[in-house]
Amino acid sequence: MDTMRQDADIIIRRAIAAVQPDAAVKNALRQKKWTGPVWVVAVGKAAWQMARAAWDALGDQIRGGIVITKYHHDKGPIGSLEIREAGHPIPDENSFAATRRAMELVRGLGESDRVLFLISGGGSALFESPLISGAELADITAQLLAGGANIVEINTVRKRLSAVKGGRFARLCAPAQVFSVVLSDIVGDPLDMIASGPACPDSSTCAMAREIAKRYHLRLSNKARSCLDVETPKALDNVETVITGSVSQLCASAQKTASELGYEPLVLTDSLTCEAREAGAFLASMARYWSGRGRRVALIAGGETLVHVTGSGLGGRNQELALSAAVGMEGLSDAALFSIGSDGTDGPTDAAGGYVDGNTAVRLRELGKPAEAYLADNDSYHALSECGGLIVTGPTGTNVNDLTVALIQG
Amino acid sequence: MDTMRQDADIIIRRAIAAVQPDAAVKNALRQKKWTGPVWVVAVGKAAWQMARAAWDALGDQIRGGIVITKYHHDKGPIGSLEIREAGHPIPDENSFAATRRAMELVRGLGESDRVLFLISGGGSALFESPLISGAELADITAQLLAGGANIVEINTVRKRLSAVKGGRFARLCAPAQVFSVVLSDIVGDPLDMIASGPACPDSSTCAMAREIAKRYHLRLSNKARSCLDVETPKALDNVETVITGSVSQLCASAQKTASELGYEPLVLTDSLTCEAREAGAFLASMARYWSGRGRRVALIAGGETLVHVTGSGLGGRNQELALSAAVGMEGLSDAALFSIGSDGTDGPTDAAGGYVDGNTAVRLRELGKPAEAYLADNDSYHALSECGGLIVTGPTGTNVNDLTVALIQG
Repeated sequence: MDTMRQDADIIIRRAIAAVQPDAAVKNALRQKKWTGPVWVVAVGKAAWQMARAAWDALGDQIRGGIVITKYHHDKGPIGSLEIREAGHPIPDENSFAATRRAMELVRGLGESDRVLFLISGGGSALFESPLISGAELADITAQLLAGGANIVEINTVRKRLSAVKGGRFARLCAPAQVFSVVLSDIVGDPLDMIASGPACPDSSTCAMAREIAKRYHLRLSNKARSCLDVETPKALDNVETVITGSVSQLCASAQKTASELGYEPLVLTDSLTCEAREAGAFLASMARYWSGRGRRVALIAGGETLVHVTGSGLGGRNQELALSAAVGMEGLSDAALFSIGSDGTDGPTDAAGGYVDGNTAVRLRELGKPAEAYLADNDSYHALSECGGLIVTGPTGTNVNDLTVALIQG
Repeated sequence: MDTMRQDADIIIRRAIAAVQPDAAVKNALRQKKWTGPVWVVAVGKAAWQMARAAWDALGDQIRGGIVITKYHHDKGPIGSLEIREAGHPIPDENSFAATRRAMELVRGLGESDRVLFLISGGGSALFESPLISGAELADITAQLLAGGANIVEINTVRKRLSAVKGGRFARLCAPAQVFSVVLSDIVGDPLDMIASGPACPDSSTCAMAREIAKRYHLRLSNKARSCLDVETPKALDNVETVITGSVSQLCASAQKTASELGYEPLVLTDSLTCEAREAGAFLASMARYWSGRGRRVALIAGGETLVHVTGSGLGGRNQELALSAAVGMEGLSDAALFSIGSDGTDGPTDAAGGYVDGNTAVRLRELGKPAEAYLADNDSYHALSECGGLIVTGPTGTNVNDLTVALIQG
């Protein structure tokens, strides 16, 4: 069984390395050959790391640019780039001012200029220049939330109240070409959802926005009302986008490493979204089916599960998934499973996730408290720490959802 | 999309045919060449069908036998076999009398005799000859349940209070050889759980039984107490067992048919046991991953999911699984999923299960009530009936758990 733990650790280490912001940006830039001047606009929680990697790769070719990240995320100067910190998850005046500065930077660029637009999670709040007052923007969002609007409806309205969202930032850059590198933290990678798509053509329409305003009885100023009538770009011919460091790359890396370690890798999904403990039960039933068939198999799932907390224990979705799988895998001598958050943090704990095998539930029972009892209290952290099942990586510097792998040695 | 519905119907029809009691018995008997006299003991809800098939296959070679099934399950005479009906799920005096008759039948058989022992679901109650009074047996079971004992603990005690369970019936048959054909309705096919294993060596011990009696403070008569000290057979050299018509065969049939229809079949598990709607979400996330990859794939899962009912709607676990999958599959143009109970009955409805595709959730929204709203009320039956998603087969005459298949045309 120790071999499987070692295999798990290798898969985890390489997968997290593959989705580091710097690795992701360097990979994306490796395909580009630019002659003209490059301007960098980096936005999001990983903006500093992404900009740093871009500077290392392109150096003097970068004429200037701006990095907009969350408070306490500035890790020092990067060449000639301006570095601004701003509010997240609620945008503040620093968000608005930094965004206006980015808009000034790209306004007036020519056809030979290139904008390297680096986006990571948190961009929605950090990159915003409202066409109405910040106070009214907050009020309209609150009205939509109170009325029960979903995220698509909220974004349909908000894109029209913003100078940069819904593809408008890319249009400001024209005629300069925009190369957009997206470090995705949203399952399924919907481009127009990540930072509300500043460089992504918008598929929603003014008619939809007006319909939503009517449905939720929005109280709007005249200015806000007229904003809803201004269409967002439906096509952008100056943008090229690369999604990188996403959960699919996390899965692809696990697939590659598992194969190198002699497993037949099978990616089940990269958009898992169900209840954590049920995903654990499902994967355990798969491990049970594949166990003892004389094949070394790695079942791989990426995504982000949920926990509905009812107990008072300590844990996180990955630890809970793993502990639940341990119940279903009890007694299997050739199977193990791990689940980790790629950011190195799972719930309010110091662990990234959990590792279990066919012996985990047996050991917990011997220690006097069965896995089921820990699960009933959402106390996966203490269960796993009792039996050496915690995976601790520390903060990894990236955030592209979770990775779950079941290893079967057959 | 209609092709996928047709494919689904073909897979369902063939899978259910493959696990019919009669087909199962005929397949099992095809491998046997017997010269000596054969005695039939058929026990369970499908006992009549299994005995009928045995009679058709072996005819005059059968010297006699008994069929013990549930009330109203006798469908007419079968050659010279005695047919008895008895209590289920609670054993009654008819269960005890019929079982005593079966014991008489096999007592005194010689080495050249063969006992064909046909077991199906319900055998635990229908095939019982207690070594204590029926009333005390019921009382001890009630004490164990009230104390929170699990099914393994209950069976460890009960096998010792029975003249036929825990391998004892097979020992009674010796020196005659026993050929045991098991039609399994329990996920994972644990032989000693099906009808409490009358022809299966028992792995539990007297020490365990005494420990359980102590743990739950059982009130026992002297007779019952002395029963706990009599060991069950640990090995049986006169028994050969074939598990048939099980959920694995349901999956194997789906795998074969899917392959013939041009899909790459992938059996995920044959022991799925998680919450129905979460299984649906997981399978939908897999369908989403496999969609659009240019491969025709069939993802196959067998087992028995659960529904924790909180709403007041109408449905069953298969319909709820399918409707939940419809939410996650919304918009996929190349994927469909069905889930059915092999007995043709899903929950308290006239449907066997449900069929959904990428358009199901769209249609429900257009009809004015989204799939999520039906799900919140556990009302999958009405949702699926709105959009032609019910699968109706009528009672199928067999019962080997559920089959769920996602088809992706890629």
